[in-house]
Amino acid sequence: MEPLSKKIFLTLMPPEEGDDRPDLKRIQDALPQELGRVSISVPALRQLYNVCRQSDWHITVSLCWTGTGWEIVLLEPGDTTGVHLGLCADLGSTTLCIRLVNLNTGKIVSQESVYNHQIAFGEDILNRVFYGKDQPERLEEIWQATVDTFREALSALAQKTGLPVERCAVMTVAGNTTMMHFLLGLDAFGVFASPYAPVDLTFGFYRAWDLELPICGYVCLYPCRANYLGGDIISGMVATGLHHREEISVFLDIGTNGELVVGNRHFLLAGAGAAGPALEGGVVKTGMRAVNGAVSYVKLENGVFHLTVIGGGEPKGLCGSGIVDMIAQLFLNGRIDFRGKFIPEAGDLTEKDGEWGIEYAPDLIFWQSDIDAFLRTKAAAHTMVAYMLGEVGLPMEQVGKFYVAGAFGTYLDKESAVTIGLYPDIPREKIVSAGNSSLEGAQALLLNKGILEELNGILEKMDYIQFGAVADFIERMNGAMAIPHTDLELYPTVKANLQKRGILRE
Amino acid sequence: MEPLSKKIFLTLMPPEEGDDRPDLKRIQDALPQELGRVSISVPALRQLYNVCRQSDWHITVSLCWTGTGWEIVLLEPGDTTGVHLGLCADLGSTTLCIRLVNLNTGKIVSQESVYNHQIAFGEDILNRVFYGKDQPERLEEIWQATVDTFREALSALAQKTGLPVERCAVMTVAGNTTMMHFLLGLDAFGVFASPYAPVDLTFGFYRAWDLELPICGYVCLYPCRANYLGGDIISGMVATGLHHREEISVFLDIGTNGELVVGNRHFLLAGAGAAGPALEGGVVKTGMRAVNGAVSYVKLENGVFHLTVIGGGEPKGLCGSGIVDMIAQLFLNGRIDFRGKFIPEAGDLTEKDGEWGIEYAPDLIFWQSDIDAFLRTKAAAHTMVAYMLGEVGLPMEQVGKFYVAGAFGTYLDKESAVTIGLYPDIPREKIVSAGNSSLEGAQALLLNKGILEELNGILEKMDYIQFGAVADFIERMNGAMAIPHTDLELYPTVKANLQKRGILRE
Repeated sequence: MEPLSKKIFLTLMPPEEGDDRPDLKRIQDALPQELGRVSISVPALRQLYNVCRQSDWHITVSLCWTGTGWEIVLLEPGDTTGVHLGLCADLGSTTLCIRLVNLNTGKIVSQESVYNHQIAFGEDILNRVFYGKDQPERLEEIWQATVDTFREALSALAQKTGLPVERCAVMTVAGNTTMMHFLLGLDAFGVFASPYAPVDLTFGFYRAWDLELPICGYVCLYPCRANYLGGDIISGMVATGLHHREEISVFLDIGTNGELVVGNRHFLLAGAGAAGPALEGGVVKTGMRAVNGAVSYVKLENGVFHLTVIGGGEPKGLCGSGIVDMIAQLFLNGRIDFRGKFIPEAGDLTEKDGEWGIEYAPDLIFWQSDIDAFLRTKAAAHTMVAYMLGEVGLPMEQVGKFYVAGAFGTYLDKESAVTIGLYPDIPREKIVSAGNSSLEGAQALLLNKGILEELNGILEKMDYIQFGAVADFIERMNGAMAIPHTDLELYPTVKANLQKRGILRE
Repeated sequence: MEPLSKKIFLTLMPPEEGDDRPDLKRIQDALPQELGRVSISVPALRQLYNVCRQSDWHITVSLCWTGTGWEIVLLEPGDTTGVHLGLCADLGSTTLCIRLVNLNTGKIVSQESVYNHQIAFGEDILNRVFYGKDQPERLEEIWQATVDTFREALSALAQKTGLPVERCAVMTVAGNTTMMHFLLGLDAFGVFASPYAPVDLTFGFYRAWDLELPICGYVCLYPCRANYLGGDIISGMVATGLHHREEISVFLDIGTNGELVVGNRHFLLAGAGAAGPALEGGVVKTGMRAVNGAVSYVKLENGVFHLTVIGGGEPKGLCGSGIVDMIAQLFLNGRIDFRGKFIPEAGDLTEKDGEWGIEYAPDLIFWQSDIDAFLRTKAAAHTMVAYMLGEVGLPMEQVGKFYVAGAFGTYLDKESAVTIGLYPDIPREKIVSAGNSSLEGAQALLLNKGILEELNGILEKMDYIQFGAVADFIERMNGAMAIPHTDLELYPTVKANLQKRGILRE
């Protein structure tokens, strides 16, 4: 463990006859030589005189790595090394998730999630991009909203823990390319408009002060690889450690956009493309986010729906994992066919304006159009993975680990996801839910400065494919629209199950 | 000439299919490779998108050296390299003097002097130090006053020239150790209190933004050598170039404090000590600063005073050069003796409360106590130089150049200064008035980045003597109280003149 910040307790010799070294030199001389030339921030410099004298020259210095060297960013009287805190964050377009970490132990102290205040400028990220396009004063509004979001989360953390969060010397942040632009107050139009040249991708270290983030030292922004392949993906991949291993693994983050990385210690192939908002419950009529009231698991037995509701209580709609379960269950129970179409002959359907649907809870209906939308998304996800493995020349069954990022992956039932063809049909223990891997990667960087060098290697090694530019992508997707896939041989366990259930004849 | 900032015009390739490099990378790739890794400030990063697109990718970048690398601090549409400005300043405790320099030609565009707003916290620098001691909020007031002083001067420059002064990427500043502390908002008590350990001496590069100075890039503060040997002296010495030459020279800056450097390209010996405010007209009853109404030259012929008054008009008092002239003239005309005491027998004196004086203009009287005070100062100056040359083992006549810094040196009549023993009795062409050498050195640094490396060498090489700690300094000073000196052999031309005038018998 080598965190991006250090706290060091120093017992200094006070100035005396024959030793008139300046206060700063006194500290620099007392610091370990291996830190190299240590600089100091202006606010810390201003503390120097008083802190040294009030503490009888027993002080604790907080240092932060700046990208090029160590900088003293805070001085405290006495020995405060027992409390050494750092922050890491996943800045999502919907939610900011921040963790307070004990940098002495590497343990999480507390975590806080708040809605991204940018939502005021559009629920959809594209609306925000258009709002700010060519308008510096609006970009400043978006930046301020972003900073406010951080402030809210940091205050909440401080209040909850009673700890001096504002004295943290470092915060790592992972997020997609647009979020990094907005956090810096940059125009993100280039992220979305051909030829997809953003303002920057490297990011790295910024002084918290410059961004008006209320901590002492620096924020380190995860670098992005491309417009649609942001720091959240790089971070997530770092969290899995797939780039260290010999076996070839897949890292998939699927939401409105799908991003994935296939690779190992020798190569990394990354890709991104639109997947549609279906997985976040967006286009599904009774869909919703994975919050209280959302149906997260569905079981259909003997024509009866068994629903698991987040937070208990009345079901209000289906979240992503609920949708996947629902489609799998409808399929396995012979209510929808391979194309995902309702089979009216199986009964129990509702009809409205010529569209079939099924009532899975009082007044909650899952419609044909919901299934269709979702299957497009799952087809996109499948095709991305299949395409990339094809590029690499690796058969699906030789995949080492199949990581799925996001809250979606956390709740998702692997069996259902395989059944509908969203996940590949590989041994289930190879499928790993990576959770908020963006946040995990941010934490890994916070705790291990060595990852900075790894990142350079990763970015250099990583090839990038924009699926939108793959000529036959749509064609390939069409083949993946079926449940689980037009080519059933790709899904041997699903095939066996269907045969067992008599849905498919042997 | 290699200024601390650069302006480079770039014609960039716009993003296109197959070239989706981010805007920043596009610029970095277009910059000369020898600049190394070029970073960018947050404000400049925020300009990037608009400036590139509004100018059809024809932009001018302003880069500033940060101490460790080049940073882009400003972007402008089109080719603005024709206007490349920089600033240099001498921050004195009384006056801030700023120059606007054309960094394409190295020529001075304009110059502005304003009173230092710190004066609100004490005319005397020590009062300001005590005002701020242990009081961070008062140190902030002093810092704000300092920043206001810069703002006033920069506004005046902008108004006078109509040039975009706020777009300067760099300003160099020289000043004494206390001024550097106040510019940064630091407690300067350690500068004056034994064992004389200030907060810092290294200084160097600070972002203008951090100090709230209204320019784009960085300010570079001249390093100081010791509490009483500030960046103004290092800067002044750099201006003379004495550290480059083989011959051993003397650099003397004498005011309330005396600072001097003796050395050449092989060694540098520096010293500082109290000299008394006499040279600035401080303790002399009818003394004043070298402003309008001050008598700058005095000639006494056949009992009649011939006075040169700055700005013409009625004389109001004597400035430093007037005092030196006055004492020399009184001495050469036999009105005062070797001890500087009025000779009542010579006539024309005034007496008040038992003290003799001479009326040199209507109602303006130069008193015995004025002479006594001034002789202490000149004795201090002489002793400092003599002591240092003694340390070095160099006879006075082997001194290469004798530089005198400051406005004082500018007006001073060399002959008078030698006559009273303030300057050594060496060939007059060796005595060089260095003017505002602190400002000249700041300008030299602004125009020549190579001086930064020189400075490291200078500071390492420079030995420092605090005259207050020299055991027999007072004794030596007593010997130098006489006019020109107790040991007349040190002043052969003065001796000859006195013999010629019959004041001294052959």
